Amino acid sequence: MRITVVGDAPQDLEAALREGLGYDLLLVSGGLGPTHDDRTIELLARAAGVPLHLDDELRAAIEVLSRRVAERLRRPYGDFAEGVAKQATLPDGASWVGLVGTAPAVVFAHDDGLVVALPGPPRELQALWPRVLETEALQALLRRAKPPDRRVLRFYGVSESAVARSLAAAGGDGDGVDVTICAREFELHVDLFVEPGASARAEAIEAQLVADNERFLFAQEEVGTAELVLGLLRERGLTLATAESCTGGLVAARLTDVPGASDVFAGSIVAYADEVKAAQLGVPETVLAEHGAVSAETAAAMANGARERLGVDVAVSVTGVAGPGGGTEAKPVGLVHLHAAGPAGERALQLDFPADRETIRSRAAVAALHLVRQLVTDP
Amino acid sequence: MRITVVGDAPQDLEAALREGLGYDLLLVSGGLGPTHDDRTIELLARAAGVPLHLDDELRAAIEVLSRRVAERLRRPYGDFAEGVAKQATLPDGASWVGLVGTAPAVVFAHDDGLVVALPGPPRELQALWPRVLETEALQALLRRAKPPDRRVLRFYGVSESAVARSLAAAGGDGDGVDVTICAREFELHVDLFVEPGASARAEAIEAQLVADNERFLFAQEEVGTAELVLGLLRERGLTLATAESCTGGLVAARLTDVPGASDVFAGSIVAYADEVKAAQLGVPETVLAEHGAVSAETAAAMANGARERLGVDVAVSVTGVAGPGGGTEAKPVGLVHLHAAGPAGERALQLDFPADRETIRSRAAVAALHLVRQLVTDP
Repeated sequence: MRITVVGDAPQDLEAALREGLGYDLLLVSGGLGPTHDDRTIELLARAAGVPLHLDDELRAAIEVLSRRVAERLRRPYGDFAEGVAKQATLPDGASWVGLVGTAPAVVFAHDDGLVVALPGPPRELQALWPRVLETEALQALLRRAKPPDRRVLRFYGVSESAVARSLAAAGGDGDGVDVTICAREFELHVDLFVEPGASARAEAIEAQLVADNERFLFAQEEVGTAELVLGLLRERGLTLATAESCTGGLVAARLTDVPGASDVFAGSIVAYADEVKAAQLGVPETVLAEHGAVSAETAAAMANGARERLGVDVAVSVTGVAGPGGGTEAKPVGLVHLHAAGPAGERALQLDFPADRETIRSRAAVAALHLVRQLVTDP
Repeated sequence: MRITVVGDAPQDLEAALREGLGYDLLLVSGGLGPTHDDRTIELLARAAGVPLHLDDELRAAIEVLSRRVAERLRRPYGDFAEGVAKQATLPDGASWVGLVGTAPAVVFAHDDGLVVALPGPPRELQALWPRVLETEALQALLRRAKPPDRRVLRFYGVSESAVARSLAAAGGDGDGVDVTICAREFELHVDLFVEPGASARAEAIEAQLVADNERFLFAQEEVGTAELVLGLLRERGLTLATAESCTGGLVAARLTDVPGASDVFAGSIVAYADEVKAAQLGVPETVLAEHGAVSAETAAAMANGARERLGVDVAVSVTGVAGPGGGTEAKPVGLVHLHAAGPAGERALQLDFPADRETIRSRAAVAALHLVRQLVTDP
């Protein structure tokens, strides 16, 4: 498996495509647009040594979409005609599979391999890929492939080294089991790729990793942390809100990124200014004055304030110094206080990891989600 | 220029490194960690045909950091020792440049080219890169290079095809000017890369693009939209808040991603549930009942409610159907109402672009920022 990213320079792109044509499957994304710097089709055809042709049916289909866009933008269709012809040009022998935007998914066979070109915009790519999967050409390729089985372990709060030692204690990887360990904020994602016949060995490795690090394990499936937390709350009939200072809405944004979040998540008060902490979350002025905005006391008042004001069962708060400015000796950049309050109790957490602004905010958001998980599963 | 992404499989990684060694500069990131699947150094040495050695000074430096981590995690240092030795192993002739986490930046010359290996975690990579830039080896390489000049145009709300036509009218790219056009949500990012001697031609292209699409142009520099909006408000002494339903805190999160946002941005009410829209933003129950949560009327009430409740000069609201569920014939997935209210007036916007949830939310967040920009610059 190999992923190559090249710019729009024709010689770089053509070299990468030539190399890709040597594989069983070459997936290309991007470069199918209407403009001159979209060169994928032209260079694929050249690399494969086949001529190009204008596909009339495809041209007609793209024209329908482009006329709609032209109308919406109140521009003459003539502005689009050249781009439409460009996007309807295919290598001989290629077929197109669906159209979401104005760029089609294109499939064609080359030697013993298969080439799939998909549009670059994620929405179009994601919508067209299932249709490509359904094609007989891709199905035939998949029947020849023997994908490894995959096992997934997700830990929170454990060190990479500790898990590496468990893996070594279990004999390390190899012998049909390939193990990847990836640190993501405070989470550790461990994936086992298991060749046919190696499942007993995979189970032994998995058992060792789980036994040594059980209190850190939070999932044995591929699931986003926000989705997992929403599921735990939903099962228990609990609603959730957030009160955010340094994360500035990031926790709420991650929660609402999950479809159907609305039956659990009610909302958030993003209290960036202290006045908002006082007025909207009811943090007492005395707490702010005595302990400061970044303190365990303010975090507790924020969580309880959100719980009460937004009328939810569980609320989690985050307040900290995200930097790069604003740090002091007593309260350095990276200091973050979190607090979760629910019907069965409360939990507080202090983080103290200097880092850049984005990392601090992102880690704090992950920690907030896990604090809710811990409050709910282990009150 | 070429970017290659490979997994941890040794043969893939080694092949990519061998290829990279043929370039003037090979930058590698990742694979410098303490675990068995971090193979960059070992395979770089093999590809370059040089032996490995343990660097004692580096080992001592990593040990200091690792002992600190061990202490914080309350684990014996013995757990880390093997990983430390691994991370302190370098190809002969290589030197290390700084240490942020436990993985060093490594620089070494190979034939006429230069190899730089950086740790994968973005925080470490970003902190170490400036130190690599300062090395004499890299400075010497840069003196040999002649980077093209770059000009930047940022449009909002214009079609890719329209800009492509302007470019064609200006004679297209080539002759020392390379033009890339990239659509990002509703923004269009146009970059001109100008070879020495081609600046007159670049100016002519730029002038044509600006003249044809002036009302869509919002920046001629590389600047994030949130940062640009915060700057416009700061210049005018105005404060900002958001009131968010379908974006669920995303607009606030983008604003607070910018360092120093706090002197402009006060906070946000994320009103995901209708009860929160009524109680926290003062949206009248009659408006919600008559027009629904996704309506121009609710958007207006949300923006004005946030302005009043959070005591800010300008507030922007977003309410829409992000999907995939919840759409109706009258209010389909992708329908989003936005409203901005400020001291000098108000502006409303309706979006109606069916797409996946992430795209709808992300586009709505971008549109909210631009609505504030337009309100402030063209009230």
